[in-house]
Amino acid sequence: MFFASDNAGPVHPKIMQALTEANQGYAMPYGNDALTAQVRDQIRTLFQAPQAEVHLVTTGTAANSLALATYCQPWQTVFCATHAHIHEDECNAPEFYMGGAKLTLVPTDDKMTADALRTSIEGEETRGLHGPQRGPISVTTVTERGAVYSLTELAALTAVARDYKLPVHLDGARLANAIAALGCSPAEMTWQSGVDILSFGGTKNGCMGVEAVVLFDPTKSWELELRRKRAAHLMSKHRYLSAQMNAYLTDNLWLQTARAANTNCSRLAKGLGDLPNVTISNKPQANIIFADMSRATHQRLHAAGAEYYVLAGDHTKGAPDEMLPARLVCDWSITAAQIDRFLSLAKG
Amino acid sequence: MFFASDNAGPVHPKIMQALTEANQGYAMPYGNDALTAQVRDQIRTLFQAPQAEVHLVTTGTAANSLALATYCQPWQTVFCATHAHIHEDECNAPEFYMGGAKLTLVPTDDKMTADALRTSIEGEETRGLHGPQRGPISVTTVTERGAVYSLTELAALTAVARDYKLPVHLDGARLANAIAALGCSPAEMTWQSGVDILSFGGTKNGCMGVEAVVLFDPTKSWELELRRKRAAHLMSKHRYLSAQMNAYLTDNLWLQTARAANTNCSRLAKGLGDLPNVTISNKPQANIIFADMSRATHQRLHAAGAEYYVLAGDHTKGAPDEMLPARLVCDWSITAAQIDRFLSLAKG
Amino acid sequence: MFFASDNAGPVHPKIMQALTEANQGYAMPYGNDALTAQVRDQIRTLFQAPQAEVHLVTTGTAANSLALATYCQPWQTVFCATHAHIHEDECNAPEFYMGGAKLTLVPTDDKMTADALRTSIEGEETRGLHGPQRGPISVTTVTERGAVYSLTELAALTAVARDYKLPVHLDGARLANAIAALGCSPAEMTWQSGVDILSFGGTKNGCMGVEAVVLFDPTKSWELELRRKRAAHLMSKHRYLSAQMNAYLTDNLWLQTARAANTNCSRLAKGLGDLPNVTISNKPQANIIFADMSRATHQRLHAAGAEYYVLAGDHTKGAPDEMLPARLVCDWSITAAQIDRFLSLAKG
Amino acid sequence: MFFASDNAGPVHPKIMQALTEANQGYAMPYGNDALTAQVRDQIRTLFQAPQAEVHLVTTGTAANSLALATYCQPWQTVFCATHAHIHEDECNAPEFYMGGAKLTLVPTDDKMTADALRTSIEGEETRGLHGPQRGPISVTTVTERGAVYSLTELAALTAVARDYKLPVHLDGARLANAIAALGCSPAEMTWQSGVDILSFGGTKNGCMGVEAVVLFDPTKSWELELRRKRAAHLMSKHRYLSAQMNAYLTDNLWLQTARAANTNCSRLAKGLGDLPNVTISNKPQANIIFADMSRATHQRLHAAGAEYYVLAGDHTKGAPDEMLPARLVCDWSITAAQIDRFLSLAKG
Repeated sequence: MFFASDNAGPVHPKIMQALTEANQGYAMPYGNDALTAQVRDQIRTLFQAPQAEVHLVTTGTAANSLALATYCQPWQTVFCATHAHIHEDECNAPEFYMGGAKLTLVPTDDKMTADALRTSIEGEETRGLHGPQRGPISVTTVTERGAVYSLTELAALTAVARDYKLPVHLDGARLANAIAALGCSPAEMTWQSGVDILSFGGTKNGCMGVEAVVLFDPTKSWELELRRKRAAHLMSKHRYLSAQMNAYLTDNLWLQTARAANTNCSRLAKGLGDLPNVTISNKPQANIIFADMSRATHQRLHAAGAEYYVLAGDHTKGAPDEMLPARLVCDWSITAAQIDRFLSLAKG
Repeated sequence: MFFASDNAGPVHPKIMQALTEANQGYAMPYGNDALTAQVRDQIRTLFQAPQAEVHLVTTGTAANSLALATYCQPWQTVFCATHAHIHEDECNAPEFYMGGAKLTLVPTDDKMTADALRTSIEGEETRGLHGPQRGPISVTTVTERGAVYSLTELAALTAVARDYKLPVHLDGARLANAIAALGCSPAEMTWQSGVDILSFGGTKNGCMGVEAVVLFDPTKSWELELRRKRAAHLMSKHRYLSAQMNAYLTDNLWLQTARAANTNCSRLAKGLGDLPNVTISNKPQANIIFADMSRATHQRLHAAGAEYYVLAGDHTKGAPDEMLPARLVCDWSITAAQIDRFLSLAKG
Repeated sequence: MFFASDNAGPVHPKIMQALTEANQGYAMPYGNDALTAQVRDQIRTLFQAPQAEVHLVTTGTAANSLALATYCQPWQTVFCATHAHIHEDECNAPEFYMGGAKLTLVPTDDKMTADALRTSIEGEETRGLHGPQRGPISVTTVTERGAVYSLTELAALTAVARDYKLPVHLDGARLANAIAALGCSPAEMTWQSGVDILSFGGTKNGCMGVEAVVLFDPTKSWELELRRKRAAHLMSKHRYLSAQMNAYLTDNLWLQTARAANTNCSRLAKGLGDLPNVTISNKPQANIIFADMSRATHQRLHAAGAEYYVLAGDHTKGAPDEMLPARLVCDWSITAAQIDRFLSLAKG
Repeated sequence: MFFASDNAGPVHPKIMQALTEANQGYAMPYGNDALTAQVRDQIRTLFQAPQAEVHLVTTGTAANSLALATYCQPWQTVFCATHAHIHEDECNAPEFYMGGAKLTLVPTDDKMTADALRTSIEGEETRGLHGPQRGPISVTTVTERGAVYSLTELAALTAVARDYKLPVHLDGARLANAIAALGCSPAEMTWQSGVDILSFGGTKNGCMGVEAVVLFDPTKSWELELRRKRAAHLMSKHRYLSAQMNAYLTDNLWLQTARAANTNCSRLAKGLGDLPNVTISNKPQANIIFADMSRATHQRLHAAGAEYYVLAGDHTKGAPDEMLPARLVCDWSITAAQIDRFLSLAKG
């Protein structure tokens, strides 16, 4: 009953198998192997973007930081949501990679609105060269609160960016889950919606540790390649990154695992929603839900071995009926039986 | 017949197996899993350094850059050999991580001597605050030219560092090969020789992609941890780094693979040395040799599928008897049969 | 009738004279001259801080950025007010100097409150090493909105900092005006209130271009000295910085010019406050006021040659009676006649 | 008898007077004043470069660092002479501004040769993306050893740069002295010789503290402007920088002071050259000479109040007849009488 994060689950067997299969003899290092070339083509095909350039790295923070640094000058500021991962969870990695650029937090509880984005952009460059200059927009879907931007919402944001001639980065650590949720195509959610550069996640969705930076405009690809090397993120035995991504993309495994995670989450949400003693506080769209449960419930669940984060308050002591919020994340590998056991325990 | 680099070979089967075994259920991310704790203890035991702190990363450049940044202020300069990997092969990653510190190249064809090091150190800080300030010494063993510092040579270097109260970093991307060559203990080659911080390589010696930064003085361990995160090198599914390192350290697999590579190289060196038309230009001590062979020989070898770097000149065209230098690297996985075939082809 | 900024006024005659007097023969460069030594002592005496260390630079942004970089690690965040100069008006200079640290904006219209500061601090480091780590507090007095922290308010802020063992920086670009406003001593407003490092401004208050960074704890003075050089802010003909500061401190010229500016502002505020068609929107404490006046009034003033910033809206066209906000800054050199003329024009 | 440096002399009276004259009333800050506009035009006229853009800063290190950062990516390396000021005397400021780029030292005792430059350039980018990428060439004239590049030598260097499509920076902290030495035009020594961006010094040649960065190709001027602000080098009371530069350029004062310094140095060199106990070790071309004198001579000179640097050995104790090298720099303000007294003392 593990709902703490989707980065704690196992690697999908097909991906493990791909690693084993790639482990034959010698392969040219640093991405100069055949498997890597194949992965680039797979991504171009998947995103219907024949001109796209692709660089693989091992962490989502590296993907985001490299993408932003390539599109943001050090004297600029990135526009992102208040609770963006790049702001709250990357220990200043974007600022490090960008050489000291700033993040401007567009006020929101979760998703950015186009209006709020426009207001934030208008708020910068009002002081000539004294303030930070306007830089890229960074959007995250699935958001930190489990929401998915509709294509309309996304297009509204990128339209604002275009008004100011600002580039758009999409943090898609959970892009697969978002695509599964909307049922759209990868192209629709990215470059057709106005995205210039994408962090396309694999790690949270069944891979061991691989993320792709996808440049829909290849102009800055060589710069990003040099930035990757300079950031110590060019793997020498690169074939093992490519093997993961290759298997992930083959037969749409990425979509299957994302659907599995979303379905698991749906089952959990429905089950919890039916319980009188539980309140779900977000609208579950992908694989993350937020639920308020009583301290007694939390204690019962933890005692039975459930793992997840209680976001506020100490669930180990205090009034049994006090409601405390929790975040529950489903990965692809959790079973219906585990979910049902969790529900049964939550019911009490 | 692959002699281009030891970062192009396969992962050792025991390490692949360890990855498969680690792939069960959930594990806390970011190094908060049991396997990672075990690896820390294994390294402490291996290096007889109970107080040491350990951080795993995926590339040698990351290990070096984090180690140096933790010990070097941005207004200082690192003393290293002319052909150090940190200078020639890391695309300014150390400078990036260190915030713009400098590298001072201690003149040498290969190994630094204590005298040359002292002269270089004396050459800095002669101009008060105008020049760069003296920073750490960075030593590499096995060197880029295939040499191994004797313990006496190493102690002489660190004694100079101590005279100036400067810390010592050891780039041990091939430390296993160096230890195998000398037959000393890991402790003797590191902290007992005056090393403060170590990059301990796994990737070139049978792992998929894992290097350990070992701080023998744990004081700055938390700083390094934060630097690792900020550099986007904290893996979320960290257990897969730890699984590699765990298997690598179990039953001294690291030493076995290093010995295998060195033995292979020895066989190759002896064989080439016996050929009248080949001149070996370094003293092979570990798993790298440099050999001069005629263009015709290079052509014959390449035509037969041998892979290695010809370091100067175009081996594909020109006078057949012109001698051209080559670098030949043996990894643990090459077979005696492959070596013998190479030798037979080289003989002509 | 120049009220645009206090950085546009002339240099005080005594300071110009000091520059002329310093212009005799040779003087050792880089601060190794007698005048610089004297200035250090003057500042120690003025602040009753015999152990303090002093470094002169030419801009307030340099003073702030060096001070913050010396007290903030790149993986930390600085706590400052929403509209702090270091955030809005320094084009990412603090981030550049700090190597990519972040600024956390403590929500406020102007002055930070101790409660809001505490909440902001509590909001960081809730995510272990994933988020930015807590760094220094940076307080500005006189604030960007013309307010002065009382000693009680200042002590409350630094008490919060002390609770979290965080250092305190005071941006005192207009410290002289703040001290003149409160009538306290320089020591009371700084280290006796818990300030660790100070930017002490001269430029806006009658100097040509000189600011002092004052370290009340001298431990990091050499680091700051190296940072100053590395930032290209160590003047070779340093005596001309020292000459300014020397004259500025002699016979409390700094206090006289600050009092003059405050008095001028007081006269302006009182005059405007008496006008029925003007609303003063801040509580003028030092040399900055904010006033709402009709578009017609703005047009009349500008037509007569008055210079100041209208903060929102276009004063050149639109409804004559629409009220538009303006910022009015008085420097030491403005005359009562100029103020009275402005008032007369404002009255209409 | 001050020969320690040309950055220790007084400000030329005409420049002091210009500062006084500029000190009238208000002027828009940050370079938005009439005097600054005039200075830009003066420089365009002086260099016969109507399209050039100009930015003033207070130190030569700032000028160099901003110029290089604007033309060098962080993953590149700058080619400069072994003893370039940017390498030896700026405490890593260029590396800081460039975000961690490297300097490649072209081997030389003093001036770079085109051949050595070409060899150094060829030595980089031999390792694909693993090593630093080729960046700008930085040439200094007058050199640190007092030499001046002939126009032919300069053209040969920039021709090499052009072969590799690399930009050229000229560190002209003493450009005036170099131009005075050659008798050429400013245009001939800069853009007509292939220079893209120039640090044009004022401080060492009679100004208080002002250097101009001149972009002959204005494309990156706005970037440099933002970099200047971000580096805290945009002076608010900018008119006082402009006033210096305005006077410096008026009636070719810059050339007069440079000629005076060169003439003084010539007198000194000729006088010392005539002495049997002194050996001049460079070919004096501008305002710097290097001379070997006995310890007894050094002691006699210092005892009489002469100030200059003895470059090696301790002149205060040891064998009286041991020869020790000294650097002697003449600024514009030294008098013939002072030089003659120095010569008389040197003669003994």
